[in-house]
Amino acid sequence: MGSAKKNELDQLCVNTIRMLAVDAVEKARSGHPGMPMEASDIGYILWTRFLKHNPIHPDWTNRDRFVLSAGHGSMLLYALLHLTGYDVSLEDIRQFRQWNSVTPGHPEYGQTPGVETTTGPLGQGFSNGVGMAMAQVYLADYFNRPGYPLVDYFVYGVVSDGDMMEGISSESASIAGHLGLGRLIYIYLDNRITIEGGTELTFSEDVGKRFEAYGWHVQKVDGYDHGQIASALSAAKEAADKPSLIIARTHIGYGSPHKQDTASAHGEPLGPEEALLVRKRFNWPETLFHVPREASARFRTCLDRGHEWESAWNRLFDAYALEHPDLAEKWKACHEGKWPEGWEKDLPRFEPGQGPMATRAASGKVLEAIAPRLYALLGGAADLAPSTKTFIKSLGVIKVDHGGKNVHFGIREHAMGGILNGMALSKALVPYGATFLVFSDYMRPSIRLAAIMRLPVIYVFTHDSIGVGEDGPTHQPVEHLAALRAIPQLVVVRPADAGETVIGWKLALNRKHGPTALILTRQKLPVIDRTRFGSAEGLQKGGYILAEEPQGPPQALILASGSEVHLALAAYEKFLEEGVSVRVVSMPSWEVFEAQDAAYRKEVLPAGVKARLAIEAGVPMGWDRYVGDQGKVMGIERFGASAPGGVLFEKFGFTVDAVVAAVKEML
Amino acid sequence: MGSAKKNELDQLCVNTIRMLAVDAVEKARSGHPGMPMEASDIGYILWTRFLKHNPIHPDWTNRDRFVLSAGHGSMLLYALLHLTGYDVSLEDIRQFRQWNSVTPGHPEYGQTPGVETTTGPLGQGFSNGVGMAMAQVYLADYFNRPGYPLVDYFVYGVVSDGDMMEGISSESASIAGHLGLGRLIYIYLDNRITIEGGTELTFSEDVGKRFEAYGWHVQKVDGYDHGQIASALSAAKEAADKPSLIIARTHIGYGSPHKQDTASAHGEPLGPEEALLVRKRFNWPETLFHVPREASARFRTCLDRGHEWESAWNRLFDAYALEHPDLAEKWKACHEGKWPEGWEKDLPRFEPGQGPMATRAASGKVLEAIAPRLYALLGGAADLAPSTKTFIKSLGVIKVDHGGKNVHFGIREHAMGGILNGMALSKALVPYGATFLVFSDYMRPSIRLAAIMRLPVIYVFTHDSIGVGEDGPTHQPVEHLAALRAIPQLVVVRPADAGETVIGWKLALNRKHGPTALILTRQKLPVIDRTRFGSAEGLQKGGYILAEEPQGPPQALILASGSEVHLALAAYEKFLEEGVSVRVVSMPSWEVFEAQDAAYRKEVLPAGVKARLAIEAGVPMGWDRYVGDQGKVMGIERFGASAPGGVLFEKFGFTVDAVVAAVKEML
Repeated sequence: MGSAKKNELDQLCVNTIRMLAVDAVEKARSGHPGMPMEASDIGYILWTRFLKHNPIHPDWTNRDRFVLSAGHGSMLLYALLHLTGYDVSLEDIRQFRQWNSVTPGHPEYGQTPGVETTTGPLGQGFSNGVGMAMAQVYLADYFNRPGYPLVDYFVYGVVSDGDMMEGISSESASIAGHLGLGRLIYIYLDNRITIEGGTELTFSEDVGKRFEAYGWHVQKVDGYDHGQIASALSAAKEAADKPSLIIARTHIGYGSPHKQDTASAHGEPLGPEEALLVRKRFNWPETLFHVPREASARFRTCLDRGHEWESAWNRLFDAYALEHPDLAEKWKACHEGKWPEGWEKDLPRFEPGQGPMATRAASGKVLEAIAPRLYALLGGAADLAPSTKTFIKSLGVIKVDHGGKNVHFGIREHAMGGILNGMALSKALVPYGATFLVFSDYMRPSIRLAAIMRLPVIYVFTHDSIGVGEDGPTHQPVEHLAALRAIPQLVVVRPADAGETVIGWKLALNRKHGPTALILTRQKLPVIDRTRFGSAEGLQKGGYILAEEPQGPPQALILASGSEVHLALAAYEKFLEEGVSVRVVSMPSWEVFEAQDAAYRKEVLPAGVKARLAIEAGVPMGWDRYVGDQGKVMGIERFGASAPGGVLFEKFGFTVDAVVAAVKEML
Repeated sequence: MGSAKKNELDQLCVNTIRMLAVDAVEKARSGHPGMPMEASDIGYILWTRFLKHNPIHPDWTNRDRFVLSAGHGSMLLYALLHLTGYDVSLEDIRQFRQWNSVTPGHPEYGQTPGVETTTGPLGQGFSNGVGMAMAQVYLADYFNRPGYPLVDYFVYGVVSDGDMMEGISSESASIAGHLGLGRLIYIYLDNRITIEGGTELTFSEDVGKRFEAYGWHVQKVDGYDHGQIASALSAAKEAADKPSLIIARTHIGYGSPHKQDTASAHGEPLGPEEALLVRKRFNWPETLFHVPREASARFRTCLDRGHEWESAWNRLFDAYALEHPDLAEKWKACHEGKWPEGWEKDLPRFEPGQGPMATRAASGKVLEAIAPRLYALLGGAADLAPSTKTFIKSLGVIKVDHGGKNVHFGIREHAMGGILNGMALSKALVPYGATFLVFSDYMRPSIRLAAIMRLPVIYVFTHDSIGVGEDGPTHQPVEHLAALRAIPQLVVVRPADAGETVIGWKLALNRKHGPTALILTRQKLPVIDRTRFGSAEGLQKGGYILAEEPQGPPQALILASGSEVHLALAAYEKFLEEGVSVRVVSMPSWEVFEAQDAAYRKEVLPAGVKARLAIEAGVPMGWDRYVGDQGKVMGIERFGASAPGGVLFEKFGFTVDAVVAAVKEML
């Protein structure tokens, strides 16, 4: 297989990758040997002849990106990282898949130098790469100047049958084709094997034709013919106005006499006997984790080239800084994650006198006000911008030849999630994406990965309850607050009014290590009078005393988030008239509240007060911890219904009278 | 637009649909007029000339199915239902989008006669239709006999740009093409408008070419040329070995002078002035909800034809019953949702002596044992059958010309979810689908719809915790139990051992009105000795006393689910030695437990016992309600890690010593 003659040294290098993978999986007694064995040739050619990177400085900003979307083949990546000179030792390879190693089962961003993104859940890497290429367009458009191609990196990826079948990849491929992302180059391992058997069981589409339909540049190669691989990669780079798919006919478990081209090569070690046969097949010594000196020397040439590339770029940047000092300053600020001095002054203020306002509308005003100065902030909606209020009118649209700020993601929530992650992985941008809260389900796998990677992604989820009204149960989230709160490292913020929405944005923009979901209403809400009640800045503590009991300790606590805070306040007014001492606690964010010290939390929720009511137009799950054994939760334990929003709140029991009655019952 | 001459009566009928939609949306002051106005011609031709249905008996089993995947255009469907004679009155149309009406904002299955599936979340209907067509293949293969085409219905659908962009549709289209589902015919409204504006903003792919790549039969028509529409539908029916896509060039808001071809026709009423202009354009009287007598008569011909069709089919069935009495009996049982007499006797039994067994393995044995007799049960995995143990070796694979029982869904979790719903909507089948629990996120929007529709779908989610081990955090669910439990009407069952797994399947198969998720381990677990501990039948109550305190009231309760029950039992043994009276409660299903009467729940969890520990290898969210103010939850509040599963349980603090210590601290 592979018609072109292969240089002996090249072949030795390829087999070094292959055998490191075999040995690591055998030693761990766990892993996926088939893919690294299959793709060693491709990995070798790409990494040593095309990828512009500097192993000793994996974070060099203008490096080419490499995405292993087929993350189960992690040993391919670890072998390449080790061999080309990254800080991944042979001992690390020996620790493959062990506790606290830098070589976990799937590539994990932040855990291993040179790993650009966390992959494994199929299709995610594919989508991340599209986001990376979009970030390149955005950054290049803003920073590049004649003679100064500061941002000209390519995004390469290796993708599998699984990636091709997943919907998120289809969505991402469609938008990548639409945008003509010429710097995106994916190699598809067409091995015709999946876990359940041959792809003929379930996958008979013409992938090449499909990608041509998306507007991609498509080529086919023999995955073992180094000449073909290199030519195709060169041609892909030349095709500047289209993303490229190189379909490489490959063989899973390449070189394994009994397992090549079978599903059994995919997800389990070859076993000692078969591993030995592979050794013989490649004329490989018995020593485990053997790296021939000549191969090592060949791989290490990446170090010199990497040093040269980065040095040249550094010189370029120095000259750029002289000629364009303002831009150079912005560049630095952007890459250090700093917002411009005093940006918070641009945040709008809202007063009760302005009349009621939906929090989605307040959010839109915040974006309009701050976005022009916050270069690093960009985003858009999954075809719901007019509803989510996320289109910034004063700024342009992102296109292949123009890095406008607004992104039209299309009706592709999942791709939006993966693309946001890819943009954030630039470490220079803070992307946001919007849709209805109920459709957060469509992008949940990507939200989870943003949380795992602790990326500064912002979600704008509007239409946050039965307040959606007539569109009915399919469009009314009831379980989504709970479901999002369940995700570790994600901060969920549900502001009670326009004022809290402003502070919610401030919190999200200042949060550098993890995603934030802003949960906003469709319907209008009064703007709370902050001269009378607690400051909206209290949102920064997750929960705060909004309405204080007039005297003495409170007899009851009413906790609420979002639109239901207004019910709590109305009940408070009633109790005030009746001389009952009640405290209203606004609880926009559980995660932020939990991060406060115990003293603060006790101050807000005094242990002695057992009469506690929580109000939220969603499933009650999780509120028990705040209301305790003697408390109550007013929530919704069914799906919604189609009717005007006001009618629904009434029918579902969210009335001031019901709140008052529930509290009184506890007193 | 539309070159062919249109019969005047036809045009009157089309405009009747169009104007009913305009009036209903105006009256509700809410809704989507653009799509029904756009697709009235298509709806009219399809429903009056092609769709084989019987309006007075919407459940006639051999009717053609109609799926409005673009569910926001619900008024198109309601107008057709009303006009062709379903039990949807003009008064119902007037109540469009109001509380308790049969004409909710989006079509809702079970709420309106003739609505085949709940749609609105884009792509779901597309996928449901594929499932319906797969059900047709499965049923036809089994029941049809020479001269008795008992099951020969077609599945028609109307899909939109949004459906085309959603990943779930891509996945579903790929599998439909693979299976060659010739009875699936979709009309795509190519209107080149989305909410954010023209499709040129974000959607420039060649949809026809893409579907050809999937193996579909593709045609293009003018969406207002009745001759072209009818010819294309006939040709689509002829193309027996391929699903069909008819790309109809249409205009959103057709006939609206100022809103046609604009995004503003999509999601809001035209407004009184524009509605008046549309009236004039179509020469329509000012009376609202006007239905011309001639049009009504034309539509009502569907009643006679429907009666004839069904009567002929009933005669066919009677003859079939004489010739094939056994099959006719099976047919009836299947459609009445009855399992064969005594089927539960086939359920396997497991004894501790058999050694430890993963619950996924026990589940596989259950399936192997019961599937051959349970004709209505069919399913498969999203390319993980060898891991989820869901391939039934004794039975065949579903193909277009053979209705085997096993489905190869491919790496398409979301399509699997939508297809399962479509299969269940046959009201004759109980489908199951399997993947890793962590990937339940990929299919969550479809799970939600199964719950909304109360469909008897069974999910087999394996690899249910950090017990997954080396594959690491991307493959280890920690928040998924909580996230699934948050969905109303979904029952989540996490069995503690092989014995509970058997009862879990029994519960799922006996549950006719709602989906069930079985949550299973990758790792082996001991089989609990039921001679000494509570019977596994206790699972049917959601939670039950597994290990009884030796004497007197318990000093502490330990609650756990799944693999963590064994930790609880091990701690119980220690306490037994020490003479401390502890009760272990196995809690495989919260939803089922909550459905028990208060007396039973108090018996299991006596109010007086305040020292309570819950153990579950996932986020603690929601357990507070069971452990109370003085209790504790041993859970995981972070993402997992890559290492052998045993090491992870240790590192994450799940040890017998830790359980004992936590309980003692409370005593």
